[in-house]
Amino acid sequence: MEELKKQVYEANMLLPKYGLVTFTWGNVSGIDREKELFVIKPSGIAYEDLKPEDMVVMSLDGKKIEGEYNPSSDTETHRILYQRFPNVGGIVHTHSAWATSWAQAGRGIPCYGTTHADYFYKEIPCVRNLDAKEIEEAYEKNTGVLIADEFEKKGRDYEACPATLCKNHGVFSWGKDAMEALHNAVVIEEVAKMAARTEMINPKVIEAPQVLQDKHYFRKHGANAYYGQTKKVEE
Amino acid sequence: MEELKKQVYEANMLLPKYGLVTFTWGNVSGIDREKELFVIKPSGIAYEDLKPEDMVVMSLDGKKIEGEYNPSSDTETHRILYQRFPNVGGIVHTHSAWATSWAQAGRGIPCYGTTHADYFYKEIPCVRNLDAKEIEEAYEKNTGVLIADEFEKKGRDYEACPATLCKNHGVFSWGKDAMEALHNAVVIEEVAKMAARTEMINPKVIEAPQVLQDKHYFRKHGANAYYGQTKKVEE
Amino acid sequence: MEELKKQVYEANMLLPKYGLVTFTWGNVSGIDREKELFVIKPSGIAYEDLKPEDMVVMSLDGKKIEGEYNPSSDTETHRILYQRFPNVGGIVHTHSAWATSWAQAGRGIPCYGTTHADYFYKEIPCVRNLDAKEIEEAYEKNTGVLIADEFEKKGRDYEACPATLCKNHGVFSWGKDAMEALHNAVVIEEVAKMAARTEMINPKVIEAPQVLQDKHYFRKHGANAYYGQTKKVEE
Amino acid sequence: MEELKKQVYEANMLLPKYGLVTFTWGNVSGIDREKELFVIKPSGIAYEDLKPEDMVVMSLDGKKIEGEYNPSSDTETHRILYQRFPNVGGIVHTHSAWATSWAQAGRGIPCYGTTHADYFYKEIPCVRNLDAKEIEEAYEKNTGVLIADEFEKKGRDYEACPATLCKNHGVFSWGKDAMEALHNAVVIEEVAKMAARTEMINPKVIEAPQVLQDKHYFRKHGANAYYGQTKKVEE
Repeated sequence: MEELKKQVYEANMLLPKYGLVTFTWGNVSGIDREKELFVIKPSGIAYEDLKPEDMVVMSLDGKKIEGEYNPSSDTETHRILYQRFPNVGGIVHTHSAWATSWAQAGRGIPCYGTTHADYFYKEIPCVRNLDAKEIEEAYEKNTGVLIADEFEKKGRDYEACPATLCKNHGVFSWGKDAMEALHNAVVIEEVAKMAARTEMINPKVIEAPQVLQDKHYFRKHGANAYYGQTKKVEE
Repeated sequence: MEELKKQVYEANMLLPKYGLVTFTWGNVSGIDREKELFVIKPSGIAYEDLKPEDMVVMSLDGKKIEGEYNPSSDTETHRILYQRFPNVGGIVHTHSAWATSWAQAGRGIPCYGTTHADYFYKEIPCVRNLDAKEIEEAYEKNTGVLIADEFEKKGRDYEACPATLCKNHGVFSWGKDAMEALHNAVVIEEVAKMAARTEMINPKVIEAPQVLQDKHYFRKHGANAYYGQTKKVEE
Repeated sequence: MEELKKQVYEANMLLPKYGLVTFTWGNVSGIDREKELFVIKPSGIAYEDLKPEDMVVMSLDGKKIEGEYNPSSDTETHRILYQRFPNVGGIVHTHSAWATSWAQAGRGIPCYGTTHADYFYKEIPCVRNLDAKEIEEAYEKNTGVLIADEFEKKGRDYEACPATLCKNHGVFSWGKDAMEALHNAVVIEEVAKMAARTEMINPKVIEAPQVLQDKHYFRKHGANAYYGQTKKVEE
Repeated sequence: MEELKKQVYEANMLLPKYGLVTFTWGNVSGIDREKELFVIKPSGIAYEDLKPEDMVVMSLDGKKIEGEYNPSSDTETHRILYQRFPNVGGIVHTHSAWATSWAQAGRGIPCYGTTHADYFYKEIPCVRNLDAKEIEEAYEKNTGVLIADEFEKKGRDYEACPATLCKNHGVFSWGKDAMEALHNAVVIEEVAKMAARTEMINPKVIEAPQVLQDKHYFRKHGANAYYGQTKKVEE
């Protein structure tokens, strides 16, 4: 558990390093699937003051197990995503500027090239706004429910597309652990930036050919991957 | 008073750190409401040469009380805002690039998402140009008068929307003290950047649903706030 | 002369510091009006290798007086500008990205706000391309001739507008010495960036009211200036 | 060979320094034409962990000669370019953000100014997508074949235009050695950025006059070059 707190702390500290957050606008969590406990950043604490021991430990049914501070206000979203996405080991939430601009625009990010296809299979979706009832009832929890429901409804594989935009809000990304989720948060920001500029340069642009998307995705993922130093799935 | 000078000095030094100013294009002030004295940056002094003791002390009726240098040329605007906005403890003026681009465009910043709603309730307004008579008579003073008049006329709560754009000019932000005003100056620049990109990505975009704006604003502000580590209003 | 070489060297070294140049794409010069000698950066030497003693000394009639290296390939443009603009003490040439984008677009930079008006009176012009004959005959020299001719023809005061764009090329700025010219090069890049974004945010935007432009320009320049710490013209 | 490995290592390390790569998204190689061996970055190794001895040595017919790791997954593209472009001594591949946005937009970069013309003669082309058969057969190899074929077919001189975009993918640049190829990778990113902004500022812009393009290209390249400190071709 101390090891997990340290990893989650380090992934949180990389958010400002990679330029993904202003002030306290982001959080990273990681889960220990055996113990069914996840570790998350405390709410509203400045990154420069953050210490590994400030991380909050939560149970999968939503109880605070350990920690001096309140957990991130987005904790319920993380919790639901861990419940609904069983192979996810880490989750990141940010308001990173380019990805959030797509979220504010209410559009998913089309796959315009291999940088996208190397990490995300097909469009990165943008889920709808919660309605008034869903917001009043349980805003953060229902955000998680909505993401998982939309992935199911649209037949999207959360492992092949490890991120989503939330309309008028920001980004959630995930991965096999906190560091991979952080890695994917960096990638989505870069991909969001290039997609916006791509449309600026060519307003009539269409998505990359599916055969090229497949080539790049499967050269890095799955049984026949050959990118990197092993044959296993890696980034 | 020495404490206030130090805080105002430090908030001024954060302007270049956060990328909000080029050369001397910005200033921060803070007020001691009991003594009715405010402290402001001297005019045209480079940030690298600035020292806490260079800060100028002004009275609320516009007399220089202490300080070797002339106060910022925008001092009269600060003074009027302190008079008209009694709960304001600190004020920041910048020409930060994205927010100033909205000001030059003559448009208020629509609320496209929760990053905005977390800090500013509804649109951040852009006040009109002063007319020739107002400029000739007392340019800086009338800038303050105009801001306060427009907030009143439009029924805007200066505490719920702690910033304004001035057409063809730049930004004023405020807060309970100099540091919170500085904090809001950082946020408006980030929000201005994302709003411009949002419209670039979706030219037909509309504002975030009011119910979502309310949720985010009131989760951080007011009696039922639950963001951060206390129940009190905090950022 | 050693003093001038040192100042020109230092102004050159600020080009990469302010993000105005990539590789060797820029140069600063300064003149000693009494001796009628100007000092300029050598051609094609990387900034990290530059030393004060590498600066080249040129006479106003175009002869190399001192220096191991060839002077900047743009030396003839600097020389003509010193001849034609007698109150100029320093000149900067860059391909800074935003200003050069306006130059490539073939447009002068409209005055959209007070940041512009604080330094440049009215639009910053973009001079036309040289024609084939002018290029073949003496490209760099004729660039200087063209700038001075266009300022004359359009009745522009080179002291009130201390910079120009050259179509499909880049920027020249000037000032009372090398440091002021450098300062103006920083300002034009910032102003160019904000003007482009202003048009992106409001494609129908018009220039700032003349009365506001006047107010800001004359609050910093001329007999009645009151910005900064003296009554004299200063930045 | 150790010297070459060191140079290729250093050029690789400059990719993140110049902001051209995120994570491991780029690679540099250099060739020893006498030995017909080229040195390339290993696949998927983080830049902060990279050491000169990690560089992989490959033969021009595609065999790994030396090195602990797998070579870059793009090695076959480099290999074919070395075969087809006999005067090339170094190659760089990146997904640098602005250039890749042009590639994703499927457009070559028009020559809008002298910054472009100083390094690239005429438009920087964007080669078409490979078709399904070419991708399945040998994706990376056929990328190299396509680039060389398109340069031939369009009568483009690979020495006068030392870079290309690959549609929906990224950038390849080259030069007389790894460092010059890296230099050209920096230039194309800067040129791509300014070209996009140029079109934003003036949607009806046309390319720079050919006579101006010629002047700048030939002032730096070829028998009559006079930029820099020698008469020889140099950057």
